[in-house]
Amino acid sequence: MALETLRLITIVAEADIAARLTAELARLGVMGSNVTAGEGAWRRALEGHGPHEWSGPTVRIEAVVSPRVADAVLARLSLAWFPHYAVFAWVCDVGVARPGKYA
Amino acid sequence: MALETLRLITIVAEADIAARLTAELARLGVMGSNVTAGEGAWRRALEGHGPHEWSGPTVRIEAVVSPRVADAVLARLSLAWFPHYAVFAWVCDVGVARPGKYA
Amino acid sequence: MALETLRLITIVAEADIAARLTAELARLGVMGSNVTAGEGAWRRALEGHGPHEWSGPTVRIEAVVSPRVADAVLARLSLAWFPHYAVFAWVCDVGVARPGKYA
Repeated sequence: MALETLRLITIVAEADIAARLTAELARLGVMGSNVTAGEGAWRRALEGHGPHEWSGPTVRIEAVVSPRVADAVLARLSLAWFPHYAVFAWVCDVGVARPGKYA
Repeated sequence: MALETLRLITIVAEADIAARLTAELARLGVMGSNVTAGEGAWRRALEGHGPHEWSGPTVRIEAVVSPRVADAVLARLSLAWFPHYAVFAWVCDVGVARPGKYA
Repeated sequence: MALETLRLITIVAEADIAARLTAELARLGVMGSNVTAGEGAWRRALEGHGPHEWSGPTVRIEAVVSPRVADAVLARLSLAWFPHYAVFAWVCDVGVARPGKYA
């Protein structure tokens, strides 16, 4: 089956900032996402300052996006979110059968 | 450590169709899956007709399968599910340490 | 945006062993993880002996780690966990924008 390659971006963040974070994603061009509640624990949660350990309720947000949108999201997270909140993000290529949905 | 490459297929769907969807996956050769409840929102959720926005409770189904089963699942979703329901799916290669479990 | 490549390891396991499993991961060098509750069903859940079908509550643990830690986790799971519990694991490469967090 012919698949188109897009990017899956996964963000795990402290639950308190979930609504602001999904609003940010929409502004950056993310057309849809799925959110799952979880529990996280990290020994180093913040960049450079603030508490270096964090544990508590999380949201796990995932979205399939174009490479351009994935870059925009990672750049914005690096600039405005990683220094201040317990937020983690990673991307990988995925194959989708109906790419039009995620353009 | 020597790993075998298989395919991870992830399906996010409106929660109402979860049971029918997992039954379909079993018929297509999926030997096991994990299901997580979530909340989704998409600006374009249906193909061609019906509402173009969707939000609500979701299930996130994931299964590690052979490439053949992954193809069968995506083909079936494209034919019978994507046009009618809020269903999204993507695949990527993953390495597993005990491939016999997922054959 | 320049990304560093690390490994995402995902473990799905019967919920009863969640605390012992995350303690094991910490011993193996995993610096942080996110845990989501779910429901799983597999036709072949154990290796070689014991029940060959399993269904019930699961935990889904994911962690972004170095290739060295990913190998150590898979080796330990293969040796001490796969033969006795309903545990599944897979790895894939992911790109992260702040690799220092996961070293």
